[in-house]
Amino acid sequence: MPNLARHGELSRRSILLSAATTVAAASLARSATAQVDPLVSWNDGPAKQAILDFVRTTTNQSDFSFVAPEDRIATFDQDGTLWVEHPAYTQAMFALERVHTLVQQHPEWKDQEPFKSVLAGDEAAIAKFSERDWAEIVFATHAGMSQAEFQGIVSQWLATAKHPRFKRPYTELVYQPMREAMDYLRANGFKTYIVTGGGQDFVRVYAQRVYGVPPEQVVGSSIATKYESKDGKPELMRLPKLFFDDDHSGKAIGIDLFIGKRPYAAFGNSTGDREMLEWTGAGDGTRLKMLVHHDDARREYAYGPAGGLPDTKVGTFDQSLMDEAKAKDWTVISMKNDWKRIFAFE
Amino acid sequence: MPNLARHGELSRRSILLSAATTVAAASLARSATAQVDPLVSWNDGPAKQAILDFVRTTTNQSDFSFVAPEDRIATFDQDGTLWVEHPAYTQAMFALERVHTLVQQHPEWKDQEPFKSVLAGDEAAIAKFSERDWAEIVFATHAGMSQAEFQGIVSQWLATAKHPRFKRPYTELVYQPMREAMDYLRANGFKTYIVTGGGQDFVRVYAQRVYGVPPEQVVGSSIATKYESKDGKPELMRLPKLFFDDDHSGKAIGIDLFIGKRPYAAFGNSTGDREMLEWTGAGDGTRLKMLVHHDDARREYAYGPAGGLPDTKVGTFDQSLMDEAKAKDWTVISMKNDWKRIFAFE
Repeated sequence: MPNLARHGELSRRSILLSAATTVAAASLARSATAQVDPLVSWNDGPAKQAILDFVRTTTNQSDFSFVAPEDRIATFDQDGTLWVEHPAYTQAMFALERVHTLVQQHPEWKDQEPFKSVLAGDEAAIAKFSERDWAEIVFATHAGMSQAEFQGIVSQWLATAKHPRFKRPYTELVYQPMREAMDYLRANGFKTYIVTGGGQDFVRVYAQRVYGVPPEQVVGSSIATKYESKDGKPELMRLPKLFFDDDHSGKAIGIDLFIGKRPYAAFGNSTGDREMLEWTGAGDGTRLKMLVHHDDARREYAYGPAGGLPDTKVGTFDQSLMDEAKAKDWTVISMKNDWKRIFAFE
Repeated sequence: MPNLARHGELSRRSILLSAATTVAAASLARSATAQVDPLVSWNDGPAKQAILDFVRTTTNQSDFSFVAPEDRIATFDQDGTLWVEHPAYTQAMFALERVHTLVQQHPEWKDQEPFKSVLAGDEAAIAKFSERDWAEIVFATHAGMSQAEFQGIVSQWLATAKHPRFKRPYTELVYQPMREAMDYLRANGFKTYIVTGGGQDFVRVYAQRVYGVPPEQVVGSSIATKYESKDGKPELMRLPKLFFDDDHSGKAIGIDLFIGKRPYAAFGNSTGDREMLEWTGAGDGTRLKMLVHHDDARREYAYGPAGGLPDTKVGTFDQSLMDEAKAKDWTVISMKNDWKRIFAFE
């Protein structure tokens, strides 16, 4: 419609034509957007190309890989895939800092492990905590209050807590390229879900603001809750009991439980995401399976097959995962080579 | 824009105006729709009015009850609220009929309760089954296969099974007024969820087709699944073990777990829905709480405070629920008085 550009002529036709110009402007805006790189923080290379190819084919009605809009599901691990997980998971940092706050109500913790080591700031001891030690710390800091109270506590903590290396709020330590991938998928009709081994109620506090993901699209680990009447008002009280472990095979189970559809795209970074990628890849048609490899010690961290950091509690990207990725044609994202920019603040 | 009707004149202006007519036609269609009664199967009365008032105020930006689109959540119980639950839950009918099919692989059932009574068609004995008897029947018929296999079995069964009284497929025994309420809420930006004490994976088989509700918006009871590799392909195998009981207080817990937002509207029909309505009502602003009362023995069934049927296993609407509804200003829907038509086929 080249004559649409002759705006002087158009403006004389008033109401009727204002509708037409709106339509035309929207169409011009769309074609302008199409020329803007939706993945501007990615370097050209196989990882970026894999995302572009996936979206192009799955949204093209005449392509054999076309996916109906209602089936466009993309799942993202959080820790190490969407944001920094070193030197410890953010939620573990929250739990450890809560011990320092709550000791006022629990003076006995000063002489009682594992709290004693936390309070003493004994990092060597903390690094050696068993699953059971962590469970004790998590239940002591994540249970015993209502859901609403817990989310208020998390929200307050996030507003002030800072990452030890980057000296910024944790919610700023989100990988800009991944945020662009999420936006790009959503702009093409994909529903983006976070599927995290971390706490569902923790992540739901900020997922909308930080990732554009609403609470109902956050699937994670959870503790049991109990329906109780408090002063005549119903409350959901958090119990010191694991309800669902959304990690490893739990991720495939959680996806089926919460979504009931097999994802067409899945993003992870550790062995905890293996089954999510396998489950995604076992579907027919074109499926995108991607793994973030932390190989950038300068801008972020290098661990896993890239080595460089001692064994820690965070997600492991071991050789067996790398081998499976190669055998099954999963795309490995090299932070160092594939990401032009890592954080929005850079 | 009355001149839009003069189509002869408009047609001369070609491309530019075709955009304008599209916009205008859409706008005319909208105003035509606004005049059509969205709840045509409801009689005028307090129940219909409650729905209309709720939608009007929660979607009016200048009303103090306005609800942001992302928070517009409406939850619906299924059995007895969206479709017929007498003389037994549809899923119980499925389980009983499966026993007859599966006895070929389990000849020992012929001499083993509770299967023996089922195979003998001993209705008096079936009516007296304990929770444990039912659990045995449910696990024997709902576990031991993959999720995909189970959904295939349900789908096949639904295609042929018929309701004993109405002689129609169960999926036709949906209450037309409730389907209109769901459509009307969705047309006004509400996300409609089914929150059922029944099996989540059972309901997900037909919820999209029958109610327009996608799998990720069906929350229900579930059994545990296990991630397994079968011939090199991952499968989720169904285990004979309850994972989540989405009934009574489980409905409030399930809503928080799956949705993470408090509903603004909730529809139920039995004591199993009590906590869902309480949880909904405990939120601030305007919340719609409705209970379907089965008081129409002629067109459907009369039970609960309306009496008329002996005590059965289906949802009970007892006097305590009626008292709570009155005390808390929940709206009771009288099937007999509030519904002009019950089924689409009438």
